[in-house]
Amino acid sequence: MLLVTFTGPDGADRLGIQDGTDVVDVAAAAVERGVTAPASLLDVVRGGDLAVLESLADVRGARRPLETVTLRAPLRPGKIVGVGLNYTEHVAESARTLDTDKELPQRPVLFSKPATAVVGPEEPIQHNGDLTAQLDWECELAVVIGKTAKRVSVADAMDHVFGYSIVNDISARDQRRSGQWFFSKGQDSYAPFGPAIRTAGDLADPYALELSLRVNGDVKQKSSTKYMLFKIAELIADISSGMTLEPGDVIATGSPAGVGASFTPQQFLRPGDVVEASIQDIGTLRNPVVDAR
Amino acid sequence: MLLVTFTGPDGADRLGIQDGTDVVDVAAAAVERGVTAPASLLDVVRGGDLAVLESLADVRGARRPLETVTLRAPLRPGKIVGVGLNYTEHVAESARTLDTDKELPQRPVLFSKPATAVVGPEEPIQHNGDLTAQLDWECELAVVIGKTAKRVSVADAMDHVFGYSIVNDISARDQRRSGQWFFSKGQDSYAPFGPAIRTAGDLADPYALELSLRVNGDVKQKSSTKYMLFKIAELIADISSGMTLEPGDVIATGSPAGVGASFTPQQFLRPGDVVEASIQDIGTLRNPVVDAR
Repeated sequence: MLLVTFTGPDGADRLGIQDGTDVVDVAAAAVERGVTAPASLLDVVRGGDLAVLESLADVRGARRPLETVTLRAPLRPGKIVGVGLNYTEHVAESARTLDTDKELPQRPVLFSKPATAVVGPEEPIQHNGDLTAQLDWECELAVVIGKTAKRVSVADAMDHVFGYSIVNDISARDQRRSGQWFFSKGQDSYAPFGPAIRTAGDLADPYALELSLRVNGDVKQKSSTKYMLFKIAELIADISSGMTLEPGDVIATGSPAGVGASFTPQQFLRPGDVVEASIQDIGTLRNPVVDAR
Repeated sequence: MLLVTFTGPDGADRLGIQDGTDVVDVAAAAVERGVTAPASLLDVVRGGDLAVLESLADVRGARRPLETVTLRAPLRPGKIVGVGLNYTEHVAESARTLDTDKELPQRPVLFSKPATAVVGPEEPIQHNGDLTAQLDWECELAVVIGKTAKRVSVADAMDHVFGYSIVNDISARDQRRSGQWFFSKGQDSYAPFGPAIRTAGDLADPYALELSLRVNGDVKQKSSTKYMLFKIAELIADISSGMTLEPGDVIATGSPAGVGASFTPQQFLRPGDVVEASIQDIGTLRNPVVDAR
């Protein structure tokens, strides 16, 4: 299933099931069927009954064209753990242009973005020219944790995955502080997230997904999750060796090559640009860049 | 007022007012007076009526000796923003021993710890010998945000402070990943927090507080908040220039000199140690170190 959060006619967030070009309004479908269903995508992640949701997907009266609803970020994560330098070619381009190590990392390079950085599809990425002249993109497969993970083994790790989505890991490259990435990657709107979460059982192979990113229609990144260095199970085992992962936490698994800083001359986002991050079987996360001075 | 969270007889967290060696159970006091009071410290932070709380402080029947209750972390922060290298002498010792810049930072050096890292007073700091041989301490004044801060000026910044507490910024120095501090500082139990929050109106001068840290009774850190480089208002203005601060968010304002890595030979925490971080007018945050392999 492809699950979404959308704004209902009352302005409140609602849980939806995306089916082709339609969205099934779960609350409306549950009323029609006389069953109880989770109220939010976070409720589903925290242990909602997927079978009940599946049974609601064909309630005709609860369907609406996707284009008539406003999608939101799927949920507000407790924490977002980012993984740096997790695609070979990006390690090389980053060493050339961003002062990072040339060698492949021996352990996952971990950083974080706060929940306040999250925006949904079509919400603006804020370009504040007073703070940055180097606003950059990174299309990343997002892993949504479904079950608390604390010191889990690589063998057991995938049992803790609820599903997959997209995070566009936006950075103000010139706001690293003594090398720390938190302020450069953690500002408001620097974590576009969505447009949907594909449940884990519905994705045959998370390492066979094409991912790409376009700016104003021009392809900047184009790769496959098969080139991920530390695989998802290794990331979960490594992070949870020290840090408990909770339902609703998100791991942004790293960016392939083709970030703006790697071009000659360097290319960065400007107000008026439109960024589209796409991952096969999940969708396209589209965000305009606006002047936020 | 000095506000605490403690475990009630039913095992649930309760809001308390610390008065000398007593705690006033706010829920019990509210019942006795027939008034409505906030249920948790986070509720107070989010806009609870301090005058109502003050009026309950003298309800005799709701008092209990502090030593008979179990204190908890005051609240679960939405985010914890840490500030590195924010005391002059610590910048110097860190440059000698931790590969950081010798120069004073021109902008605050920001990092983060997740909410899952928080523990309360007397809760163990987990020493996992499989992950670290360099577990270190840092006693820091914690600023608890009370009002949403987004692009606030230095002049207005202090209006957004709810109160002050202590964070012991625990690090596994050998778990920095390509220089990033998130995994070295963000593991479970690496953010002891408490024992209480002093409300801002009840603290005359946050830059006139002695702070100190002892390991097994030996003083390792001893300084004053007057030596803070970027002051609290500057930190709030800087962080909120890009990142919205929400009620219940915490800023850990940096450590003075005397961290374990700075000693010759270096000193690090081991199972069996007891760490006490003290700040004048707030209290002492005491945590044992346990073997967590």
